[in-house]
Amino acid sequence: MKIVLDAMGSDTYPEPDVEGAVLAANAFPQDTIILVGDEALIRRELAKHANPNGKIEVVHASEFVTMEDKPSTVGKAKPNSSMHIGMNLVRDNLADGFVTAGNTGAALSIATLFTLHRIPGVKRPAITAIIRFRGSGIVIVDAGANADARPDWMAQFAIMGKIYAQSAFQLDNPRVGVLSNGEEEGKGTEQTRAASQLIAQLPLNFIGNVEPKDMLKNTVDVVVCDGFVGNIAIKAMEAATSQMAGAIRDELMSSVFTKIGGLLARPAFNRVRKQIDPFETGGAPLLGVNGVVIIGHGRSNATAIKNAIGQARTAVTGRVIERIREGLQAVPSAT
Amino acid sequence: MKIVLDAMGSDTYPEPDVEGAVLAANAFPQDTIILVGDEALIRRELAKHANPNGKIEVVHASEFVTMEDKPSTVGKAKPNSSMHIGMNLVRDNLADGFVTAGNTGAALSIATLFTLHRIPGVKRPAITAIIRFRGSGIVIVDAGANADARPDWMAQFAIMGKIYAQSAFQLDNPRVGVLSNGEEEGKGTEQTRAASQLIAQLPLNFIGNVEPKDMLKNTVDVVVCDGFVGNIAIKAMEAATSQMAGAIRDELMSSVFTKIGGLLARPAFNRVRKQIDPFETGGAPLLGVNGVVIIGHGRSNATAIKNAIGQARTAVTGRVIERIREGLQAVPSAT
Repeated sequence: MKIVLDAMGSDTYPEPDVEGAVLAANAFPQDTIILVGDEALIRRELAKHANPNGKIEVVHASEFVTMEDKPSTVGKAKPNSSMHIGMNLVRDNLADGFVTAGNTGAALSIATLFTLHRIPGVKRPAITAIIRFRGSGIVIVDAGANADARPDWMAQFAIMGKIYAQSAFQLDNPRVGVLSNGEEEGKGTEQTRAASQLIAQLPLNFIGNVEPKDMLKNTVDVVVCDGFVGNIAIKAMEAATSQMAGAIRDELMSSVFTKIGGLLARPAFNRVRKQIDPFETGGAPLLGVNGVVIIGHGRSNATAIKNAIGQARTAVTGRVIERIREGLQAVPSAT
Repeated sequence: MKIVLDAMGSDTYPEPDVEGAVLAANAFPQDTIILVGDEALIRRELAKHANPNGKIEVVHASEFVTMEDKPSTVGKAKPNSSMHIGMNLVRDNLADGFVTAGNTGAALSIATLFTLHRIPGVKRPAITAIIRFRGSGIVIVDAGANADARPDWMAQFAIMGKIYAQSAFQLDNPRVGVLSNGEEEGKGTEQTRAASQLIAQLPLNFIGNVEPKDMLKNTVDVVVCDGFVGNIAIKAMEAATSQMAGAIRDELMSSVFTKIGGLLARPAFNRVRKQIDPFETGGAPLLGVNGVVIIGHGRSNATAIKNAIGQARTAVTGRVIERIREGLQAVPSAT
């Protein structure tokens, strides 16, 4: 298997990206990791590491996308970016999957409009988010691509999310829910009620409306929503945990006793942090583009990059793209 | 001033409700607290407390609303509920404000359709949520009443929220933002962009799009959104903090050292809990109904009830209802 990694993706590229590629090449010695980006920079970084068990190749790209680049214009403005060149390797069957810790919106736009394009039948590709908390994992579709999503797009999100969850979480029949402001059937908006009616007709395990608390309680596996609501729900959770952690830190520092308590309790805090650490998962897929694309967090460390490469491998092994293509064809009413 | 308290509101009525009334009567000795509900039950509960400094009256109501009652039907089904009778005292100028820790949806429905009705010019009343965190407070409108809100309704939410924040937080010129999936001007949905265009024309301090993190960072005072998004954002924050607290508790109990650490750190945890404790605030107003109505949490304790009564007093003193009436008249383009 060959996985392409954008060496220019993370906020502190290319260090964590290249180190993550080396970790992956050691973990998956039968595979080839293709690093795309500034070749001189990549080779200099690679020289800092011992030769890995697996194979690492380098493909040069003269440009790269930054977090400041606008998703709507960067595809045209930087046609030789590492994202373009990396995704084209997948499009041309020279590689099996693409991983980047770069600009999510840009990756979606470059994948959809310039390189991989959509899987036949897909109306709108979606950004996803994966939440892992206390042992369970869920996939949220859409997490930000389509602020004004139509109900039939959301029905496709349900199918794509189901197929990804089957592969990523090893589930036979993932529970699919629509994010809503209450569990009762009448709750929600015109949009979510219409989407629910469509999803209820699909060949999947639809459990109806779910609430934000279900996203952290292992009562659902795939959460369907439009990109506006999904993005706000995820950002609300991130803001709450981050502010709470900050408040605890500040209060622990306020007296000698609580400082000592905080030190003794540190292993417990670290375990909690690990439970909600996005880096443990690595990244989240773009769903609906015609190739495996995994997007990691900009602040990814090397372990996160390695895990994101692992996710791409799992999606390739699970034939996620082929199965989405088949899944959408089998359900004409949703397309 | 006379404030009516629904004695049958909280999950464990009438204990915290009656005790909260006694606390309020001691805190505000010039006022009268009118307890509405089952008179025998209230008098039995009152007998457990020493006579307070202020005056407490009891008005009998033969019915009361439960959390299981449907907001859409309970107004008709229980015409003699403590909510009906209490709100009618305000409507008939026999009291200045109404407080309940009961069913929020039912209170909105009974206020809007059966008792107080809307302030002239108000298109849709809204439920609010007040978040206080690390010293700052914000009001979120709408927090759940109108899942499909029109942009012109949201413009009214902005005015009503501004006026409430001026009174509740003692602010001259509260910062008003629209909850969105990014701060840039083009972000959001058709609905939020249209609402922003209307709000930008209003006589208030509009700061544009805000994100969930702003709700916890004292960078905005009034957050405008539809009831679907607002409800999900608040529930997402609650779920995240509650799950994180649970994870910390579990991990602290997992070894002797972390247990001791947790004990030493307890004062710090308690201060954090107090920072995010909804009971410190007491409740949140219904905005747009023609009378002061404060809704407390079902799990309110006596202090929370007392604080909710304090909030009602502040809204009465701040002439919130009159000022909303004037504020909406002054802005014909938004009505």
